Amino acid sequence: MRLLRLAEQDLIAAIRQDFGKGGRGAVLGIGDDAAVIRPGKQNLILTTDLLIEGSHFLRSLHPPFELGRKALAVNISDIAAMGGRPLYALLGLGLPPGTPGGWVERFFAGLKSAAGEYGVHLIGGDLSRSRKVVISVTLIGEGKAFVRRSGGRPGHLLFISGFPGQSHAGLELLKKGFKSGKDRGADRLFKAFLDPVPQVELGLELARRKAASAMLDTSDGLSVDIGNLCRESGVGAEILAENIPISPELKRLRKSPLLDALYGGEDYGLLFAVPPTRLPEIKKLQKRFKLTQIGRLTAGRKVYLIHPSGQRTLFLPRGFRHFQ
Amino acid sequence: MRLLRLAEQDLIAAIRQDFGKGGRGAVLGIGDDAAVIRPGKQNLILTTDLLIEGSHFLRSLHPPFELGRKALAVNISDIAAMGGRPLYALLGLGLPPGTPGGWVERFFAGLKSAAGEYGVHLIGGDLSRSRKVVISVTLIGEGKAFVRRSGGRPGHLLFISGFPGQSHAGLELLKKGFKSGKDRGADRLFKAFLDPVPQVELGLELARRKAASAMLDTSDGLSVDIGNLCRESGVGAEILAENIPISPELKRLRKSPLLDALYGGEDYGLLFAVPPTRLPEIKKLQKRFKLTQIGRLTAGRKVYLIHPSGQRTLFLPRGFRHFQ
Repeated sequence: MRLLRLAEQDLIAAIRQDFGKGGRGAVLGIGDDAAVIRPGKQNLILTTDLLIEGSHFLRSLHPPFELGRKALAVNISDIAAMGGRPLYALLGLGLPPGTPGGWVERFFAGLKSAAGEYGVHLIGGDLSRSRKVVISVTLIGEGKAFVRRSGGRPGHLLFISGFPGQSHAGLELLKKGFKSGKDRGADRLFKAFLDPVPQVELGLELARRKAASAMLDTSDGLSVDIGNLCRESGVGAEILAENIPISPELKRLRKSPLLDALYGGEDYGLLFAVPPTRLPEIKKLQKRFKLTQIGRLTAGRKVYLIHPSGQRTLFLPRGFRHFQ
Repeated sequence: MRLLRLAEQDLIAAIRQDFGKGGRGAVLGIGDDAAVIRPGKQNLILTTDLLIEGSHFLRSLHPPFELGRKALAVNISDIAAMGGRPLYALLGLGLPPGTPGGWVERFFAGLKSAAGEYGVHLIGGDLSRSRKVVISVTLIGEGKAFVRRSGGRPGHLLFISGFPGQSHAGLELLKKGFKSGKDRGADRLFKAFLDPVPQVELGLELARRKAASAMLDTSDGLSVDIGNLCRESGVGAEILAENIPISPELKRLRKSPLLDALYGGEDYGLLFAVPPTRLPEIKKLQKRFKLTQIGRLTAGRKVYLIHPSGQRTLFLPRGFRHFQ
């Protein structure tokens, strides 16, 4: 569950305090990627995300098929960030009267294609009239083990999967009028934004091998995501700027690739902390997944960015504002 | 889960066919008030509803405290309509930048008050920027037994709880500028619209006693709700107009109280079919709940309204359009 920036870190804290830990059978309540309940002998992982036209996507930039896929993918990513497997989805969909039938058809085709790919079953929903397209997906997953955001300790190593900044760069190029099908590198950036791939298998492996002490998905940009992991774990961090993996296409097509990587959001990779004793597990996983150590957790509460010059600056959470 | 009328009965049918019955562990998929999964030894009942400013409520008419209560209540009503008990809620909330802090506070206070009243725990959510207020609630409940929409058979008797049309009448009076606190009857109508009471205890009793063969909540107006129950059960119905219970305040304050009762929506009472052999159970429940027999299910597929004159007319599903 992404908790976007209004000025509402305070609001979330208030809600959390107000509504507490969740009651009977609730293993994990507000404040993580997803909630966990244990109605029987099994953990169920629950998450919900709103995608609102104008705030999270533009119909002019986002083809409906890819939008349907992404609506499911961003929720799957929250389940992946807990180390769980997605199972069931509920869809709330608000549509403006007069939305072309073809648009709706392609949206559902995309949703169905992602559902098939990740083994998710749509079990219910609510269709509604709305001035802008509103998509609300709730996902239910399962996980024998699950990984919170709060288990990071000083000395644990901080890893990310994949290349950060790809999605933001893709969006920026689209906004500038770049077209797909002309440059393979640019196409990879477009895909990262339009049709991101949630890291379910990686999340499952990290949970199964008990390799990650804390984990979340990279949805709000590294600076925000790292800040969230550190706050929940009660630690600080040192991030090595030169360790941040930059893809060849990001380097080639963007002026400030490092800024994209540090502050761009919506990558839906995984950011996780690893106790040094679990490093051999990561080594094994690096044969299948692109995993990069970008820093380590520290005893303080502050997050520092270490520049190639050796200079240390505070790495403050901030994100790009996309549409509003 | 309400499925509002765009022109989308077709769309829902297509989604249902496309996404099928829900896969491993899914007991009941798309098409009922809620979905049911059985991850362990227990049924979990899941439902989601969107409330969108301008489509489902107006901020000028709906105080935030009552809106917070209603956002939860309409979902609780879907769980009640399955004969289940609500347990956990997830909230997706889209807020326009600049929404007054006091509004947000009152909204959450209302949500919390309803959560406390019905034993629901808020376990997670997603806050987001939006042009209009968007509220998406997903509710998870449990139920040993549960009641589908599809179990009605010819000869079963059709009952409703409470007084239909109250909510619609309350909205109409509010739109005309009537103020609360001046007339007790009008206040009851306002409350029915602003702060409806889901029928959890009644639903649980009907399920526990196996007294209802089919059930749903009256959210779209009787004509639509009866049509839905009949379609899912593959039956028709005869409804006796003179049996429709009309409250004293509806009779006194509205010009066409029967039309309010037949076509007004958002009452969140229960509509259910009862096999004649189970009538003694209903008699017992009538000591605690206002339950009225309004007709019976028939072998045809058509729904007829029997007027006091004895005239039979087709009772076609239609609803009032509220805001858009």
